[in-house]
Amino acid sequence: MIRELTSPSNPLLKSLRRALARGVTTEGWLAVEGPHLVEEALRATASASVRRVVVGRRAAQNFQHLLSRSPSEAEIIRVPDRLFEKLAQTETPQGVVALVEKYPADLESHLNRRDCLLLVACGIQNPGNLGTIIRSAQALGATAVITLEGTVSPFNPKAVRSSAGAIFHLPVFPDFESEKLFRRFRAVGLRTIAADQRSPMPLSSADLTTPVAILIGREASGLPPEISREAGQLLSIPIGLGTDSLNAAIAASIFLYEAARQRGFRY
Amino acid sequence: MIRELTSPSNPLLKSLRRALARGVTTEGWLAVEGPHLVEEALRATASASVRRVVVGRRAAQNFQHLLSRSPSEAEIIRVPDRLFEKLAQTETPQGVVALVEKYPADLESHLNRRDCLLLVACGIQNPGNLGTIIRSAQALGATAVITLEGTVSPFNPKAVRSSAGAIFHLPVFPDFESEKLFRRFRAVGLRTIAADQRSPMPLSSADLTTPVAILIGREASGLPPEISREAGQLLSIPIGLGTDSLNAAIAASIFLYEAARQRGFRY
Repeated sequence: MIRELTSPSNPLLKSLRRALARGVTTEGWLAVEGPHLVEEALRATASASVRRVVVGRRAAQNFQHLLSRSPSEAEIIRVPDRLFEKLAQTETPQGVVALVEKYPADLESHLNRRDCLLLVACGIQNPGNLGTIIRSAQALGATAVITLEGTVSPFNPKAVRSSAGAIFHLPVFPDFESEKLFRRFRAVGLRTIAADQRSPMPLSSADLTTPVAILIGREASGLPPEISREAGQLLSIPIGLGTDSLNAAIAASIFLYEAARQRGFRY
Repeated sequence: MIRELTSPSNPLLKSLRRALARGVTTEGWLAVEGPHLVEEALRATASASVRRVVVGRRAAQNFQHLLSRSPSEAEIIRVPDRLFEKLAQTETPQGVVALVEKYPADLESHLNRRDCLLLVACGIQNPGNLGTIIRSAQALGATAVITLEGTVSPFNPKAVRSSAGAIFHLPVFPDFESEKLFRRFRAVGLRTIAADQRSPMPLSSADLTTPVAILIGREASGLPPEISREAGQLLSIPIGLGTDSLNAAIAASIFLYEAARQRGFRY
């Protein structure tokens, strides 16, 4: 059943436009644009559910394959193309947007996994960097991503786009108070390591085969002292003398790659 | 000697504005904005020379340390703040821009280096990705970066910004015709490997300790067939089943990290 909406003042479309600008609805559903992200959301049946799909009239024909794969309880709405263009937040609207509910995940069970590999983003400001980290985390076998207070939202539209849909598949726990989080890590005995380019200990010297949380600081300033103090071990990626440090998403991905390599790429 | 310019119609300032928008002057000098990039250009005495520095009047006081380190033959120009704001291309102008000449480098001698580690960007479209690759390449010991025709310019202002100044230090050979390049590789017997996520051969199984050129394809479509045909070996980064591939800058950086690791991080 496809519902047709034609009035720009329809409250449902108005709230959808707001959600697309923010990245989330008031219920906490992700609001995403474009066929690639909608497809990834549809694929993530174990961790997310597409609740609403809105298509422009012209695009509706091209996106039959997406609409037919939408869950039966999802609401499908078709709008005139000119109305769709007003709705979309991207510069070149691709004719389809969706609201996606991510199922709540349980951090406790993640902390106790034998293959636990957490990535903790501590203050990353650039949504593209955070999204890229989430994409790498999913590809390289991280079991969840956690963001601390003061980090850009993982549901920011640019972060979701850079995640290339990984955000639907991977458990993401946003906006944690750092003290609270480290208390929980200590309670379950979870080891923490932090990326810190000032450390003389090279990343490859650490054993990353056992459960571990990797702490990644913000782009320019790195980890604040109150966070690096909490880390069990500070590790650096050996780089050339006199060269600048690495981009935060690159550093996070190299830490994840090194862990995956040591674990024999068994995901 | 500081020269004062106050007229917005001054031809020197007009050509500077055009250069800042394009990233290069007609002579091929890089046009860069902000104290961080100007500082990196000043540091790169072996490979680049700052030819002109332009500061806003207010900023001039804060940037005394930059002005005093400029080479004696560099021209230093001070302009009124309002004129500076018109010149700058960034949203929040930081009061200083510079024109930087990179010294010409000789590809032949690079191809014959015993520690040769080339990164060849084959069609990367996103300037931020290319700049990040150049930053990683410098940090992780690549000896040069080459871009093929159809790749975004490494001198694009966004690429230069994402390189965090690495572009001044590392030899970069832009806009190569692919056939010509592979002919030169063959002539010196340089081995090539390509990042290709469809390959069953994992990256870590390859020996990267001897001279090698790493080929990285464009974001969405990867390497075109005529390039992967040329590659001596196709290698993939092992990622989880059903996960999307990695961002192009991440993949390039993991290849470089793996090479650096195998080479014992001796830069």
